[in-house]
Amino acid sequence: VTAPVREHALIERLAGAFRGSPAQLNRRHESDAELVRLPGTGVILALTTDALVEEIASGLYSDPWLIGWMAVTVNASDLAAVGAEPLGILMSIALPPDASDDLVAGLRTGLGAAADAHGLPVIGGDTSRGATLSLTGTAVGLVSPGRPLTRCGARPGDRLFATGRLGLGGAYALGRLLPGSAPEVTFRPLARLREGRLLRRVASCAMDTSDGLIATLDELARRNGCGFSLATPVEEVLHQDVLRAATAAHLPPRLMLAGPHGEFELVFTVPSDRCDALTAGAADAGWAPVELGVVTGEPGVVNLGAGGGPIDTTRVRNLFEDIGGDPRSYLRALNALLEPPTM
Amino acid sequence: VTAPVREHALIERLAGAFRGSPAQLNRRHESDAELVRLPGTGVILALTTDALVEEIASGLYSDPWLIGWMAVTVNASDLAAVGAEPLGILMSIALPPDASDDLVAGLRTGLGAAADAHGLPVIGGDTSRGATLSLTGTAVGLVSPGRPLTRCGARPGDRLFATGRLGLGGAYALGRLLPGSAPEVTFRPLARLREGRLLRRVASCAMDTSDGLIATLDELARRNGCGFSLATPVEEVLHQDVLRAATAAHLPPRLMLAGPHGEFELVFTVPSDRCDALTAGAADAGWAPVELGVVTGEPGVVNLGAGGGPIDTTRVRNLFEDIGGDPRSYLRALNALLEPPTM
Repeated sequence: VTAPVREHALIERLAGAFRGSPAQLNRRHESDAELVRLPGTGVILALTTDALVEEIASGLYSDPWLIGWMAVTVNASDLAAVGAEPLGILMSIALPPDASDDLVAGLRTGLGAAADAHGLPVIGGDTSRGATLSLTGTAVGLVSPGRPLTRCGARPGDRLFATGRLGLGGAYALGRLLPGSAPEVTFRPLARLREGRLLRRVASCAMDTSDGLIATLDELARRNGCGFSLATPVEEVLHQDVLRAATAAHLPPRLMLAGPHGEFELVFTVPSDRCDALTAGAADAGWAPVELGVVTGEPGVVNLGAGGGPIDTTRVRNLFEDIGGDPRSYLRALNALLEPPTM
Repeated sequence: VTAPVREHALIERLAGAFRGSPAQLNRRHESDAELVRLPGTGVILALTTDALVEEIASGLYSDPWLIGWMAVTVNASDLAAVGAEPLGILMSIALPPDASDDLVAGLRTGLGAAADAHGLPVIGGDTSRGATLSLTGTAVGLVSPGRPLTRCGARPGDRLFATGRLGLGGAYALGRLLPGSAPEVTFRPLARLREGRLLRRVASCAMDTSDGLIATLDELARRNGCGFSLATPVEEVLHQDVLRAATAAHLPPRLMLAGPHGEFELVFTVPSDRCDALTAGAADAGWAPVELGVVTGEPGVVNLGAGGGPIDTTRVRNLFEDIGGDPRSYLRALNALLEPPTM
């Protein structure tokens, strides 16, 4: 996979030649959270920062409670993808000049609910006055000694899973950005911290679906020089509410997997000989992995199954920015990219 | 000191009843960086987040290089105030839609230069598209085992110092926000990380002057139930460039200590019997503490010396927001607050 990802190009321009830390275990893009070994100890810190800016400006998130909830969850999800134990989160909040009491109270209760739900206490923060509302979280977690779980390590023949059914992020975004086009779905994701700690023992790589399934597969294909072939019917991959929304909106269900707003599940690969351990460990913990397909040896070739040919995951990933943000044009173009000529 | 600080009130509204972490050693406002003991180890993490939002929107910082430099420095300064060893920083950047190549390149070189100068490598980050430019840094450091250095611990009779001469932050802000009113001063602060590590051994409390000397003294008085009496002539407290700028602008020099934009020195207190250790340790390290005065037993009473009575540090601290941001009205009101009737 060599076509450039727009977001990667921007990060190169902003951070090109930065000297890293000798204590850092991962290179850029190799894991959802940065992994830093504390000098003189076996302890590995997991650190991640993620801001809500466009999501608020575009109206994707407008309920103050949900904004607070998501500011914690997006960061907790990065900790989950490296199998970290949550330690705490710092929250920097820029409030607009006209911030109402309801806005402030909604943010506080959403932040507090998500902190409690994830066991990720808000340990500090910063406030400022900005033109528009934005929240930037930075989460810290601990990773037990040993080889860390990252985006790297998948091998051809490994099996591909998700921690749960997918599509709620896409269906939610559709309902918000094209009101009336589809029944609204409830969107209040819980980061998969518990699942991530099991994956630490069995998975060869993992990444969260914060940017949607296709972007996740594109990134994992880049990191591992592999491809993916999906075999499970889309009806068994999508959340029931998402299937209902797609049907009601007369949209192909797989569209719900392809948008840039994901559902904060984990996607991960497991060597065949550890799949029994995955099944048993997940059953013990009360969840069921959703099998998606397999890792292939064809670099960058992602096939969604159902008789279609491989899709251009880089174009899918860049599409929302390429189109310039109009939701209807985006959906049309996205649909075309997902229906490649059969081979 | 019981009058409310505007910033504290907002933080209460945003974070009022948050459950903290049992691993956290400080309570809210007690230290410049959050201090968290890693479970099962003696290691203490120092964590701090600080955003540049108003500083950019107001034009206080407009050179992209300086914006990048300051985004690192403001966070490094919080690590310095707790005597931490820097480990790394995460940088979340919201770029406006029209961000030029020069802006991006300037940010990158400023960030990189400050990261190198402070030994605080940029280990990760996040990019987004915002209406306006903003940068949110989160720095991580390590504190060696033992009683941490915080804002708490000053006792009446302790002596009050700064790590260097003060006023550059105020004089710089004056030159930027009221162009032509005073000669511009060079402002490129370096956080006092090395000094902070010495203070860990000798100081009873410490805080950086990110919000200016008066706000720092107000906060330290609140945390310690003490007062401060300054004895050193203002000519020996202010940086030479600041004295020149004040004289040229026909402004009372002490005004340069009172504005909300500080110089990122550390202000700290030292018990009398450790002052020799301070002098010797600082001389070994090639710096000279600036003595400001003494800690008194009168809660909240801050006297700037030179024959004046105590000043209302809370009103000084809230004034910029109370006035609504007009620099000339602010300066007039500030001057009045600094010239209380003699007792």
